[in-house]
Amino acid sequence: MEFSCSRVELLEAVNAVSRAVSSKATTPVLSGIYLEALDEALRLVATDMELGIEYTIPVRTKRTGSTVVNARIFNEMARRLPEGPITFCVNGDNPALKVRYHGSELTLNTMNPQEFPLLPAILDGDRLIVNQGQFKQMTRLVAFAASSDESRPWFTGVLWDIQPEEIRWVATDTHRLALLSGQAVEMHVNQPRQVILHGKTLSDVARLLPDEEGPLQITLTRSQALLETDRLRVILRIIEGQYPKYQQVIPRDHKTRLTIPVRALAEAVDRASLASIGKEGSNIIKLSSEGNLLTIRSNSPEVGHIYEEVFVDIDGDPIPIAFNFRYLQDVLKVLDTEQVRLDLFGTLAPGLLRPVGEDHYLYLIVPVRTM
Amino acid sequence: MEFSCSRVELLEAVNAVSRAVSSKATTPVLSGIYLEALDEALRLVATDMELGIEYTIPVRTKRTGSTVVNARIFNEMARRLPEGPITFCVNGDNPALKVRYHGSELTLNTMNPQEFPLLPAILDGDRLIVNQGQFKQMTRLVAFAASSDESRPWFTGVLWDIQPEEIRWVATDTHRLALLSGQAVEMHVNQPRQVILHGKTLSDVARLLPDEEGPLQITLTRSQALLETDRLRVILRIIEGQYPKYQQVIPRDHKTRLTIPVRALAEAVDRASLASIGKEGSNIIKLSSEGNLLTIRSNSPEVGHIYEEVFVDIDGDPIPIAFNFRYLQDVLKVLDTEQVRLDLFGTLAPGLLRPVGEDHYLYLIVPVRTM
Repeated sequence: MEFSCSRVELLEAVNAVSRAVSSKATTPVLSGIYLEALDEALRLVATDMELGIEYTIPVRTKRTGSTVVNARIFNEMARRLPEGPITFCVNGDNPALKVRYHGSELTLNTMNPQEFPLLPAILDGDRLIVNQGQFKQMTRLVAFAASSDESRPWFTGVLWDIQPEEIRWVATDTHRLALLSGQAVEMHVNQPRQVILHGKTLSDVARLLPDEEGPLQITLTRSQALLETDRLRVILRIIEGQYPKYQQVIPRDHKTRLTIPVRALAEAVDRASLASIGKEGSNIIKLSSEGNLLTIRSNSPEVGHIYEEVFVDIDGDPIPIAFNFRYLQDVLKVLDTEQVRLDLFGTLAPGLLRPVGEDHYLYLIVPVRTM
Repeated sequence: MEFSCSRVELLEAVNAVSRAVSSKATTPVLSGIYLEALDEALRLVATDMELGIEYTIPVRTKRTGSTVVNARIFNEMARRLPEGPITFCVNGDNPALKVRYHGSELTLNTMNPQEFPLLPAILDGDRLIVNQGQFKQMTRLVAFAASSDESRPWFTGVLWDIQPEEIRWVATDTHRLALLSGQAVEMHVNQPRQVILHGKTLSDVARLLPDEEGPLQITLTRSQALLETDRLRVILRIIEGQYPKYQQVIPRDHKTRLTIPVRALAEAVDRASLASIGKEGSNIIKLSSEGNLLTIRSNSPEVGHIYEEVFVDIDGDPIPIAFNFRYLQDVLKVLDTEQVRLDLFGTLAPGLLRPVGEDHYLYLIVPVRTM
């Protein structure tokens, strides 16, 4: 095989597929990146057998062919390559990959491409198309609420609850829940279905998408999801099992509604967190209200105590409530609106946050019981 | 005590003194920052008894006084404070420090300021004044060549070899040596003397200095060095012992001189390093020359092999030589000139680098013996 390309595009492709390289590969070939020179294109593939990523870039091909290189070394190399055209070739019986630039030459050890498990060509299944920007946004607003505890697979996942008229994205770690509803651009799904995909992996995939708008094509079989753009093809496993009935935990008919400036709240929570981390860290901050002030208190024997005030609009009687500050911090980081509504239903009932002017999103936090 | 100040200046001061806070303080008070409200100024002090840093910022003082706060917590707090004036006060018998902004209030635990070991007021000693910018530059070009192996204290240090007409800064870890000569703006030193100061600490101090030019006053007693600017006062211990006679190892009368573009060499060395790290990492790269080409070769069974070419000017016969690539990388990162001269004296003799157009600096690398 022989092809030439520029460093910038190669590096982009190598970075993208590297996400799927197993850090503790059981088979040596899985620590590699599969390279295939097609006519006028280079296909790169990596997989850890749970997640597979394929990325295609335009190159000038002189001779088609394939090889497998160590991912870590190829990545390090790509970062150090000079600007200007670079030629890659494998010659005859010698399996080594030669990389040439200016007068210099790098000879890399390779692995047998025949041993590499290529991604299955998924053809049949439910199909939908969403905007790439929308996919990024939905992932950003929802995936962080999933659990990182791999012993309960469902809770590490983001649920796509696909209804005829909308798709609901849901994630929860049982202490908080995020829900966002959106529409697909196109939807060819036989009947409503629920699909659970690994939250952390979805976030990683979202980061691989370009910032421009463009269609993301999604194909769902029984066990796998395929996400495709022009250059990128990602296959991930669907997490098996029944997702909890999330609708039942979303409360209605609030008793008290606070309308709060997001930035002031975020800063106050950040400061209040100071006296709730520490060695005896309970992570608890206590919210209450007086007149048109939301007050936030925290204290720890080690640090001292903190009292914060935020001007808010209040409709209803004061309801004191205590939260783990991290669950508030997480959502305040991703909100784009200037104001957020906090609906309260009682001291021991979950609080419900909704960005003002963005009805499709809600975030629920289970309170902490304090004395 | 009671004073008010802005977040920006406080944070700058807290960051500066934090460098001297012991990470494993044996006495609790050494995990703290001493705060003293003077008339119109706040003095912050931290020390681990090896290094002491004092930083003074203008504040509006209502009542003078002092206290000690936990450095880590105070630092975290300062980062989270809002813009706008912040009031700090300790009232009557209650030792807690109250921090007020807008309507909010933070109450921090404190320690007894009487227990804090303040920095000695050094008065007598040799005095010199250098430019802050020059101090930064000299530190940058020399300190990295010191050893990080604390079992041999001299080699962790930078030598200031103070001669009547110049100061030579020297550092070596026995595998390479950096030497820079410069002049002080003022010098009141009784007789030539040698002072060894901890290289890593000098680099940290250099980072605390502002980017503007300005005088740095240095006072040297028998055992301590005091570095002073308007706002900053640093005391560090002088490392005891006799520094090796560095002049003897600097070779003269080269056999071959190469003049090499710095950037091309840096990039070629970076790439060549790829095949000399790895598990069997010897860190060795081999330099040779052919015609007007400098060639660099490396290889490892794990990665493969690399051949790099750099166009150079050569005066003398080719001398093949092998270096640990890290010693070359380190110096190539700090050089400001476009070209560097490499003088060679033999395959087993140290190579000598000098930036072209900057005669006051030299860097020597001991070669590696290869088959």
